[in-house]
Amino acid sequence: MSEVVERLRHVLPPEALVTDHDRMQSYRYDRAMFCPAGEPLAVVLARETAHVQAAVRVAAEYGVPIVPQGARSGLSGAANALDGCIVVSLEKMDKILRIEDVDRYVVTQPGVYNAVLSRAVAEHGLFYPPDPSSWEFCSIGGNLSTNSGGLCCVKYGVTTDYVLGLEVVLADGRVLRTGRKTVKGVAGYDLTKLLVGSEGTLGIITEATLALRPQTARPRTMAALFDSGVTAGEAIIEIIRSGVSLSLLEIMDRTTIAAVNDYKRMDLPTEAAAMLIAQSDAGGEAGAADIATVAKLCREHGAIECIEADDEAEGELLLEARRSALLALDELGTTMIDDVCVPRSRLADFIGATEKIATDLDITIGVLGHAGDGNMHPTVVFDAQDPEQARRAQVAFDKVMEVGLELGGTITGEHGVGVLKRDWLRQEIGPVAESVHRAIKAALDPKNLLNPGKVVT
Amino acid sequence: MSEVVERLRHVLPPEALVTDHDRMQSYRYDRAMFCPAGEPLAVVLARETAHVQAAVRVAAEYGVPIVPQGARSGLSGAANALDGCIVVSLEKMDKILRIEDVDRYVVTQPGVYNAVLSRAVAEHGLFYPPDPSSWEFCSIGGNLSTNSGGLCCVKYGVTTDYVLGLEVVLADGRVLRTGRKTVKGVAGYDLTKLLVGSEGTLGIITEATLALRPQTARPRTMAALFDSGVTAGEAIIEIIRSGVSLSLLEIMDRTTIAAVNDYKRMDLPTEAAAMLIAQSDAGGEAGAADIATVAKLCREHGAIECIEADDEAEGELLLEARRSALLALDELGTTMIDDVCVPRSRLADFIGATEKIATDLDITIGVLGHAGDGNMHPTVVFDAQDPEQARRAQVAFDKVMEVGLELGGTITGEHGVGVLKRDWLRQEIGPVAESVHRAIKAALDPKNLLNPGKVVT
Ligand SMILES: Cc1cc2nc3c(=O)[nH]c(=O)nc-3n(C[C@H](O)[C@H](O)[C@H](O)COP(=O)(O)OP(=O)(O)OC[C@H]3O[C@@H](n4cnc5c(N)ncnc54)[C@H](O)[C@@H]3O)c2cc1C
Ligand SMILES: Cc1cc2nc3c(=O)[nH]c(=O)nc-3n(C[C@H](O)[C@H](O)[C@H](O)COP(=O)(O)OP(=O)(O)OC[C@H]3O[C@@H](n4cnc5c(N)ncnc54)[C@H](O)[C@@H]3O)c2cc1C
Repeated sequence: MSEVVERLRHVLPPEALVTDHDRMQSYRYDRAMFCPAGEPLAVVLARETAHVQAAVRVAAEYGVPIVPQGARSGLSGAANALDGCIVVSLEKMDKILRIEDVDRYVVTQPGVYNAVLSRAVAEHGLFYPPDPSSWEFCSIGGNLSTNSGGLCCVKYGVTTDYVLGLEVVLADGRVLRTGRKTVKGVAGYDLTKLLVGSEGTLGIITEATLALRPQTARPRTMAALFDSGVTAGEAIIEIIRSGVSLSLLEIMDRTTIAAVNDYKRMDLPTEAAAMLIAQSDAGGEAGAADIATVAKLCREHGAIECIEADDEAEGELLLEARRSALLALDELGTTMIDDVCVPRSRLADFIGATEKIATDLDITIGVLGHAGDGNMHPTVVFDAQDPEQARRAQVAFDKVMEVGLELGGTITGEHGVGVLKRDWLRQEIGPVAESVHRAIKAALDPKNLLNPGKVVT
Repeated sequence: MSEVVERLRHVLPPEALVTDHDRMQSYRYDRAMFCPAGEPLAVVLARETAHVQAAVRVAAEYGVPIVPQGARSGLSGAANALDGCIVVSLEKMDKILRIEDVDRYVVTQPGVYNAVLSRAVAEHGLFYPPDPSSWEFCSIGGNLSTNSGGLCCVKYGVTTDYVLGLEVVLADGRVLRTGRKTVKGVAGYDLTKLLVGSEGTLGIITEATLALRPQTARPRTMAALFDSGVTAGEAIIEIIRSGVSLSLLEIMDRTTIAAVNDYKRMDLPTEAAAMLIAQSDAGGEAGAADIATVAKLCREHGAIECIEADDEAEGELLLEARRSALLALDELGTTMIDDVCVPRSRLADFIGATEKIATDLDITIGVLGHAGDGNMHPTVVFDAQDPEQARRAQVAFDKVMEVGLELGGTITGEHGVGVLKRDWLRQEIGPVAESVHRAIKAALDPKNLLNPGKVVT
């Protein structure tokens, strides 16, 4: 048994430490494809902040890397183990600590699943907006560390917009408390928002105070069908131009719809090339007017059909279809999921360019995404056993990002950099920003122990 | 002439350099009281990013401190000159560079006044929400560097919520571009939001890309009068608990109302101890319903009168009254403006405690603030010629912050730390956070040239 493991045994209770080779296997990977993962020395199942501190201190003592982990639903390899690392999993720190009604915030441990938290606050008439499609199987800590988006961020913003304060274990084992419990505050640097989205490279989040909103009105949902993806993209631009405030605006193309029908045994229309899903939670007449506006705009801009959901259950079914899209495409073969966000005015161009890449390379790309934000997930589907196809898949995956950058977009709207997109990050942000990243990383983690090699290299 | 000034003359055009002693005087102070200000060596009136770079490089070469300045409307001494410093004023970089309708953003230079930018985007049917009371005489660069709030942030959030990307001159003269032009993006650390609110200590902002919203509906405005400040505070808590979505919820006490009547020759009711101003921009029936709900809640919770503004002009007059409150109190004597933000559930307690401080110390405190956010500006008014009164004023000012912290609040909701609240910052954030501040400051500004002694010491 290694000295490091022996030290860990000393400082942690037995239930907080896994060193069994087989049990450790499930802590090696997140859900990204083609990202290397090492063999951890040990997995720490922290039950409290002190366990995280203890693990970090041992790691610091021996110069061993630490990989923080939430629910490992990530799509960039950011949570993947490194050889000889200590994995610090937060999955057992899964308690909601406090829900405040008037001040509208929740204090929570990081291991709580997004959907669990959302339901808990809903019982208080409150609403936690960030809702990644993976909400049933991703943790708040992971959401914070990747700054997750979701379906309703077109109206309500992303995770960082809801973080009031954090408790964080630093690379030297000290506990940092950032932020506040008030709505506003400018006392010092915004360390909270610096830590959000830092993918476990600057600190380990052990508690979060998250802002909540009052619950919204009952949503109204509609779908619009188009016989071309580009036309659908143009309709989206018109919807945005109109200023109508939707709580959701998603797109799925034919490939994706067919995959979802198979996967979920659903009966979505497959004759169309693309389907938009729109939702308004404005309530009452305002909500009805929003949906009518969208239907009118879709019809005027090439929709072949518009269908309003009969009731909330039918609307929820449409959302469920969209949420399961990535998993459905996964059934068709091996997938590589892009996550490009473009200025919304360039959506039609982006969809057109993606279709052209698929045609030119003779490869399947399922086009889906949070259209209202310009955040698209073209998903390359291929046979990994066929090396030639795998090569073209990789080319397609890269070309999609290239097009995204050319259109003034970013290589990652919400999934993060991890190991998958380190080279692309450099290309996007350039050498000055890269050096500032390094300086900040060195300031908070001078020994490069926290998730080394992720994001910054 | 000093060597530094000579170097500046070499690298800058004459119109970008002020070294005349008298002309430099107006660049020494912001609007904070009792904050020391030094004599600058030179004032650089940058016309372009290259001028800022040139000035920073000379400063770095000679180890001379740099003080960035916007419109010097700050209330914490953050923009005050230091002895022998180079002031870099951004006031001449005052061009709006681009307004994008569909993508809803504006690219602007930092010297543009907030109100000028707001009006310019309104002509495109767009809305830039952050609206400090000082909007007619503060710059976007200052707003960014202090993360300004304003009247409508109760519904729309503060400056940081609207910043997509920045161009920043670093302490070594390099130009950093942060962020993006898309709605979402997680490519790397959120350097943008780290720089926002950093009060000129981490970099000099030379360009900003700011998100915009569609214009809102015509607002409806009402006022409610109370015969006690605490009762008004309790009514606010009930309004918030109800979940009604207001675009503004402000409070002014009797002292403040009387001061505004004098200053603006207005005729606000002075019989009440406190007045709430509420606004809804939901439009149509929804807006009317919001205002009716607020009126009902106010009446149920102790209001002696509720008055709805007859039209938009009358509503705007109420807002104008509130915006001029600090300037009006300034006419009564010397002022020290607190900026405490408390959890909204503690508002009534906070108002009660503030009134008690005023009584106990026999000193005037005008109570006003962004009540809907819990962000209050109790303003101590006193005769600076009377040393004993001045002493009590200082005690009162400090006690208000103490109470704010005791109630779970922060010492600064929007005005920032500057030189005024450095000691209080340390008390609020504690030694670990303080050391992280220092580490980040050292990472971005290793020679401590950028606004040294402000925020972090
Ligand atoms: C089918 C599917 C759909 C998805 N849909 C979306 C979507 O709509 N929007 C979206 O944004 N993402 C989506 N994702 C991606 C993923 O679910 C999110 O990135 C999620 O936030 C990851 O959470 P997690 O708990 O699984 O984190 P992990 O994958 O375990 O970790 C992610 C990163 O966070 C770090 N980390 C985790 N917890 C902590 C902590 N407590 N402290 C410090 N660092 C920590 C890890 O080191 C790693 O860098 C989807 C994924 C799948 C598989
Ligand atoms: C009557 C009155 C009412 C006010 N009401 C409000 C209110 O409602 N809400 C609110 O938030 N504030 C309010 N303020 C405070 C003040 O107006 C704000 O803090 C404003 O944002 C300061 O902008 P400025 O351009 O005047 O900045 P300055 O005072 O010149 O500078 C403020 C800080 O920003 C730095 N800075 C300025 N420009 C740059 C730049 N381009 N790059 C880097 N650093 C820079 C300076 O170094 C300094 O640290 C009020 C002030 C007054 C006098």
